[in-house]
Amino acid sequence: MGRKVLLMIADGLGDWPYELLDNQTPLQYATTPHLDRIATNGMTGLMDLYQAGIPVGTDLGHLTLFGYLYENYPGRGPVEAAGKGIQLFEGDVAFRCNFGTIDEDRVVINRRAGRIRQGAKELAEALNDIEVEGVKVIFKEATEHRAVLVLRGTSLSDQITDTDPKKEGIAAKKARPIDDSFESKRTADILNKVREKFEEILKDHPINQKRVEEGLLPANTILTRGSGKLTNMPKITERLNFTACCIASEKTVLGAATLAGFDIRTDLSFTGNIDTNIEKKAAYAVEALKSYDFVALHYKAADLMGHDGNIEGKVQAINRYDELAGYVLKGIEQEINDEVIIGLAADHSTPCARYEHSGDPVPVVISGKVIRKDKVTQYNEIACGEGSLNRISGPAFTTSLLDYLEKTIKRGS
Amino acid sequence: MGRKVLLMIADGLGDWPYELLDNQTPLQYATTPHLDRIATNGMTGLMDLYQAGIPVGTDLGHLTLFGYLYENYPGRGPVEAAGKGIQLFEGDVAFRCNFGTIDEDRVVINRRAGRIRQGAKELAEALNDIEVEGVKVIFKEATEHRAVLVLRGTSLSDQITDTDPKKEGIAAKKARPIDDSFESKRTADILNKVREKFEEILKDHPINQKRVEEGLLPANTILTRGSGKLTNMPKITERLNFTACCIASEKTVLGAATLAGFDIRTDLSFTGNIDTNIEKKAAYAVEALKSYDFVALHYKAADLMGHDGNIEGKVQAINRYDELAGYVLKGIEQEINDEVIIGLAADHSTPCARYEHSGDPVPVVISGKVIRKDKVTQYNEIACGEGSLNRISGPAFTTSLLDYLEKTIKRGS
Repeated sequence: MGRKVLLMIADGLGDWPYELLDNQTPLQYATTPHLDRIATNGMTGLMDLYQAGIPVGTDLGHLTLFGYLYENYPGRGPVEAAGKGIQLFEGDVAFRCNFGTIDEDRVVINRRAGRIRQGAKELAEALNDIEVEGVKVIFKEATEHRAVLVLRGTSLSDQITDTDPKKEGIAAKKARPIDDSFESKRTADILNKVREKFEEILKDHPINQKRVEEGLLPANTILTRGSGKLTNMPKITERLNFTACCIASEKTVLGAATLAGFDIRTDLSFTGNIDTNIEKKAAYAVEALKSYDFVALHYKAADLMGHDGNIEGKVQAINRYDELAGYVLKGIEQEINDEVIIGLAADHSTPCARYEHSGDPVPVVISGKVIRKDKVTQYNEIACGEGSLNRISGPAFTTSLLDYLEKTIKRGS
Repeated sequence: MGRKVLLMIADGLGDWPYELLDNQTPLQYATTPHLDRIATNGMTGLMDLYQAGIPVGTDLGHLTLFGYLYENYPGRGPVEAAGKGIQLFEGDVAFRCNFGTIDEDRVVINRRAGRIRQGAKELAEALNDIEVEGVKVIFKEATEHRAVLVLRGTSLSDQITDTDPKKEGIAAKKARPIDDSFESKRTADILNKVREKFEEILKDHPINQKRVEEGLLPANTILTRGSGKLTNMPKITERLNFTACCIASEKTVLGAATLAGFDIRTDLSFTGNIDTNIEKKAAYAVEALKSYDFVALHYKAADLMGHDGNIEGKVQAINRYDELAGYVLKGIEQEINDEVIIGLAADHSTPCARYEHSGDPVPVVISGKVIRKDKVTQYNEIACGEGSLNRISGPAFTTSLLDYLEKTIKRGS
């Protein structure tokens, strides 16, 4: 009998107290018998993913939970590329993109080309695999209006500005170098030429002609941001020699897991919302525990409700997260002979009253037979503030969890 | 309705337990219903301004509370210069000074020229605006025997030693370079020439002739310390794009606030002592909350009592600080429509039994409607040790507080 680790991640879980909930947070207010049982069985605390008071993005939050260090953050582009299954090589520069709509003066009318869905794949295929000045252009559609661009060639830099103006009604920007290097100037220049070529191809593309006929906005430009290169950080699974799997639907999370060296498992019935298939998610997690040392199980709906400012929705999303935990606990009991250490975490807080990520810490648990049990018996932002994990940083939490695989490297001898 | 932040700072608040107070600290022993109400309404903790066990000065303590990083500490001279309203330019070197009394052998008889008050302004005017080897000399009197010196010119360094011997009965020192650079040697040389010129001017100045006639010590030299240059840190108000105001009497605090990009408000009825005009201070703070995002309200008397070793006086000073908090809470309730997040902090501990700053952490609170409430219901060094802010660093505390203005910059995306 060995030992396995299961890390459950509730995206955007942390929140603030609301009068509507008798001055409790959604997590305090929700019905969470299974999460509380996990907390009772272990040690609890509050975690700062990066630093107290500093909000992090979903990408950085998950990279941290998966053992990446902040200094090695590659930028959002490479995470999205990994999420699309594009294997990046050293020197590649990756960007997050939107299909967008511009007028004759290149003023951005719509940053998402009317949230184009149908036809995005065909448009992306038309843009993929072209070449500009010896640099290969890889372009793949992602969810809805989103896409990923990779430039592959020699002497490329990720130190160039975004062309997405972030607002509508102003002109799309030219890419500019952020530093004085030859590589940055060259890359900005090439990206601007790639963009011109993209616009030529998109202009008369049948998909766009059809959209205009139907009164829809044409996807006639590509807006880029989040440029980044792979960093030289060895994958944690290789560094510590363990096997890992991530179960999620969200592309960003799957991308972060891929960069960290995890295998990934997803399913079309895993949505980012409250209607996600929790029975199947739990079944996948239990199945993965049979063959992997470390399994990460991601649940998205709490974050979504936070961004929507939907307090009652967030309570419901958390109720359902607890049900997911219930299925997982039952599956482990019935099917897993190994001892399983369970971690509970979140990638950041998304308070409903803020509609955005905040810098508030998130409640965490490390639970299991060999784990020291503190006095805390509830999983929430208040109770866990009294736990023995104390106020812990993201990297320290992940390292603590991994240590129960007994593969961490001793310092000194 | 927006959200504002009010940070109340009790200088030197932290202390030790004393038998005289039934083995309680002055803050535990004092009557503090308003501070306790603020603590009850929020999360509490213990803060190390710099590092556990390392005392900090009033200047560094406040710079930290105002968002400055330790690496960017400019030295005391620039803080004092800012407190006197002298705008420093890049390359300027600033010093804290005392008027002092020396004998014919340049032995320091009195480091404060008998705590000279009257006439200091005229003497300072006589020393101001002279030139030595192309370097401009700016000299302004400060409180009592204190003054500020700024050298303005090319190739100046702040890496030179203090001329203040810190003790009486020994000779005033010559400025010496701390490193081998041309600039440091040049600056030490110039400072020594400036000092000679100062002594020439002071020697026969009518103010000093009159002092000697009256049996007072003449202010016949200038002793320098705390040399520093402005550092390249962008002001936090500009970096995070918010407006801020500091209400205080203490020049050092006002200087630190100015360097951090805060506007300042003061009044002659704001003394550094227990008799300060707390009604007016509270009124200024409430008024400032109407137009600024962030308001810092400073109260000095606790520190003074600590330096004097006056345990009962410190209890009284804290009772009065609580009254100040009471006026502030009332004013906010009556006049402010915005949601106000209240922070309670101190710049360092000044234990009465130590007569000096200590490295003990100080109790802190972040309180308000949207703030998670821990179980702590009292504001003191013991109760706050059980709070959910936990043991927090100065920069992390300030960042956490500022995050409620929702202007912190997200890491990752």
